Amino acid sequence: MTRKGIKSVSLPYKIDIVSNTTKKIAVFPGSFDPITLGHVDIINRALPLFDTIIIAIGSNATKKHMWTLQDRKTAIEQLFKNNNAIKVATYDGLTATFCKSQGAQFILRGLRNSTDFEYEQTIAQANYKVNGIDSVFIISSPEYGFISSSIVRDIARNGGDYSKLVP
Amino acid sequence: MTRKGIKSVSLPYKIDIVSNTTKKIAVFPGSFDPITLGHVDIINRALPLFDTIIIAIGSNATKKHMWTLQDRKTAIEQLFKNNNAIKVATYDGLTATFCKSQGAQFILRGLRNSTDFEYEQTIAQANYKVNGIDSVFIISSPEYGFISSSIVRDIARNGGDYSKLVP
Amino acid sequence: MTRKGIKSVSLPYKIDIVSNTTKKIAVFPGSFDPITLGHVDIINRALPLFDTIIIAIGSNATKKHMWTLQDRKTAIEQLFKNNNAIKVATYDGLTATFCKSQGAQFILRGLRNSTDFEYEQTIAQANYKVNGIDSVFIISSPEYGFISSSIVRDIARNGGDYSKLVP
Amino acid sequence: MTRKGIKSVSLPYKIDIVSNTTKKIAVFPGSFDPITLGHVDIINRALPLFDTIIIAIGSNATKKHMWTLQDRKTAIEQLFKNNNAIKVATYDGLTATFCKSQGAQFILRGLRNSTDFEYEQTIAQANYKVNGIDSVFIISSPEYGFISSSIVRDIARNGGDYSKLVP
Amino acid sequence: MTRKGIKSVSLPYKIDIVSNTTKKIAVFPGSFDPITLGHVDIINRALPLFDTIIIAIGSNATKKHMWTLQDRKTAIEQLFKNNNAIKVATYDGLTATFCKSQGAQFILRGLRNSTDFEYEQTIAQANYKVNGIDSVFIISSPEYGFISSSIVRDIARNGGDYSKLVP
Amino acid sequence: MTRKGIKSVSLPYKIDIVSNTTKKIAVFPGSFDPITLGHVDIINRALPLFDTIIIAIGSNATKKHMWTLQDRKTAIEQLFKNNNAIKVATYDGLTATFCKSQGAQFILRGLRNSTDFEYEQTIAQANYKVNGIDSVFIISSPEYGFISSSIVRDIARNGGDYSKLVP
Repeated sequence: MTRKGIKSVSLPYKIDIVSNTTKKIAVFPGSFDPITLGHVDIINRALPLFDTIIIAIGSNATKKHMWTLQDRKTAIEQLFKNNNAIKVATYDGLTATFCKSQGAQFILRGLRNSTDFEYEQTIAQANYKVNGIDSVFIISSPEYGFISSSIVRDIARNGGDYSKLVP
Repeated sequence: MTRKGIKSVSLPYKIDIVSNTTKKIAVFPGSFDPITLGHVDIINRALPLFDTIIIAIGSNATKKHMWTLQDRKTAIEQLFKNNNAIKVATYDGLTATFCKSQGAQFILRGLRNSTDFEYEQTIAQANYKVNGIDSVFIISSPEYGFISSSIVRDIARNGGDYSKLVP
Repeated sequence: MTRKGIKSVSLPYKIDIVSNTTKKIAVFPGSFDPITLGHVDIINRALPLFDTIIIAIGSNATKKHMWTLQDRKTAIEQLFKNNNAIKVATYDGLTATFCKSQGAQFILRGLRNSTDFEYEQTIAQANYKVNGIDSVFIISSPEYGFISSSIVRDIARNGGDYSKLVP
Repeated sequence: MTRKGIKSVSLPYKIDIVSNTTKKIAVFPGSFDPITLGHVDIINRALPLFDTIIIAIGSNATKKHMWTLQDRKTAIEQLFKNNNAIKVATYDGLTATFCKSQGAQFILRGLRNSTDFEYEQTIAQANYKVNGIDSVFIISSPEYGFISSSIVRDIARNGGDYSKLVP
Repeated sequence: MTRKGIKSVSLPYKIDIVSNTTKKIAVFPGSFDPITLGHVDIINRALPLFDTIIIAIGSNATKKHMWTLQDRKTAIEQLFKNNNAIKVATYDGLTATFCKSQGAQFILRGLRNSTDFEYEQTIAQANYKVNGIDSVFIISSPEYGFISSSIVRDIARNGGDYSKLVP
Repeated sequence: MTRKGIKSVSLPYKIDIVSNTTKKIAVFPGSFDPITLGHVDIINRALPLFDTIIIAIGSNATKKHMWTLQDRKTAIEQLFKNNNAIKVATYDGLTATFCKSQGAQFILRGLRNSTDFEYEQTIAQANYKVNGIDSVFIISSPEYGFISSSIVRDIARNGGDYSKLVP
């Protein structure tokens, strides 16, 4: 790689050789209050990437939820009951700690817009620097990009019809 | 998932059952004029996800390059010569068409900031809607987030020292 | 529209023919706690677009306000009392439901920066997909782009002078 | 609007009284190289707002186009030939000057993401401050938000199938 | 500045002549709950700009903190005890009012990403327009850009190791 | 800084002791094609921070300009001729190299919106990592935030009146 007298670049970068026989496991963390078509889109599109995806419902005690932890868990289990590659779990504490306890190498997250991106960026970099767990991202399909659990809750709270937004 | 009289949500969402025995192949497309530490960071962190990563150098005839296609290809091959999971190729035309020709299911891309995100979002959604090729994203490590080939070229063009930015 | 042998594009897109004799009514929803020069800028600039603008004060019971609903309503009524095209109302529940009850076809919103844009984008798309109510946006005049009710409240709470920020 | 001894706010803001009997005319400017489903979405959704929408094709001589000005004009005329509220024109020079020559009070633009927003914000504010022409925005429908003329041209240039992106 | 018959630009702009013998004092405001390596990076890089930097810990009574005001103050004093150019103070009320009480001409803030930028922009413009206090910004070093007090608290709350994120 | 049994944080961070008797010199680089009210706003507001501000006009040979380098230099010199703290220079090559040749410790830049921010962030981080020159930012006053040299050129090219945008 030389050009017009510019100094040649030596390339002594050390590359890790990775064995790809280990199972690829991802944790897909969230509140899922409730699970939306946006979540389902990300999970389905990530399935070809992983051997197992663990949908991990954070049981954050300080956050108020609209649906109970048990209701949320049952709904998701029901939804994916025919897919062996998907497991459903609840957890508290740090997501990275939960990943390690499950042997998961990756956190899976969806990105809808740049507000999402900037939020996820700091979390992902902290998880990697502090805990050594890396994150993988999929961008929402356009037709689901405006859907969030918080919009569903807002509609539900006011008695509106949110059936087009959830599975 | 019922709550305070809000109508129960039926969950008849159809889930594809995916066989995970097929090889996972990703194309990592770019100009690589030149390859930077930012690129190498993304490739290394994506290695555990895929069986093969094809680094695909776009030979866009209408774009002016600082290093020749051959120089760029040789530099990358040299860099990853001890890693069987990585292949290097050149291509022209649409990235999605090249993916199909290689049996690759995914495009791999790095994200440095929200400007990157918004650009990649439209490309990724077009690739999926028009060509059925999905994209997977990894967020740059913080220390490489400011590095771009264009900054390297700018330093090189003015005779500066860019050795900390490239492998 | 043909070019260099690229296939010609047929154009059978169905276009709705709209009768424009119906009154154009917009709802401008917000907390208005308090109304600022930024709000007034948007309302004044939107007046040429609509026959009626309904300034709709959301009486969200779960949110704490600095000024009472009645004080906010009186202040706005006072401000626009000489303009027949502007009505002031309070509402609770979904904004889209309120729009339908008023025969309003549009929600009117101002945009100050891209944080605003990304927030409004998801709300507007949900309102359209779920409720069929469309949204129209005006970008704040530069000199009012930094003004928000929350900055006014912050100054008021600390005994500062916010008189340059409100009408 | 008084509260806890905070000084009362006087409200002597001057409000323009606007006669709404004048025709509402908007210019929808662009290169339309080519017109996409994204453009058509914005035009259709803006129709209820205006008496006339002038689709104005900028004939910027310094910009290279894929389709000729005449081809672009014919394609758009064909598309909207049954809708009297839509006119098609070409122009050069400043958009604001063209608006004035047509008696149009508004520029109409679509917004797809925050990159669009930031670009449009400076243009809109300049048009208003320098020329007194205001702009009205509609946010793209989610399913069209990734479509741009430049993506269509990229696919066309490489012989791909862009038929799902154009009318 | 004339060109091709375009009208010549007269330049009668009035420029303030500033005496630069006054001490340059900046206030670096925040909650510092806790102080992070990100804060320390900004302070150190701003030292060459100012004669004095006052680290000002806001004692916002309505906000819940993890560390007490006294603990936060002691930690910061300890950290910078050998640097005479740095002072540590607590304050309540408006930051601009505190600046004036200290004879400080500037507010100093760090910027990590565009979410930060958009938040700081409105605050800075309000401080200048309402109170005449200007703000100066430094962009975080890449390796600290993901660190925030809120991420540290989240790790601390869950018993994780945050020692790489704080001084 | 101890809390509820969470481990105490030792604070052995090394702080540089900086002598503040050296002259503070900033380079304000740009094309200034032409200088706008936005530039003048940033320069005036930065004057209290620095002993000298060098307005440095990049003479990038590959970029096409509307005004000649000499015209741009003369216009700026004329504008600031009564202010000893401001110098005007032209340069080519890297901005950081020019800063070193002038004994300048800082690059000064204005920020108008988050698009600006993301662009400046990568440049500033590269200048610091590669060349050891730090950057200081001021956010544009709201009323100048939409002004750019490129908008002025666009108006000038089309024979419009840009006198409100330049000094």
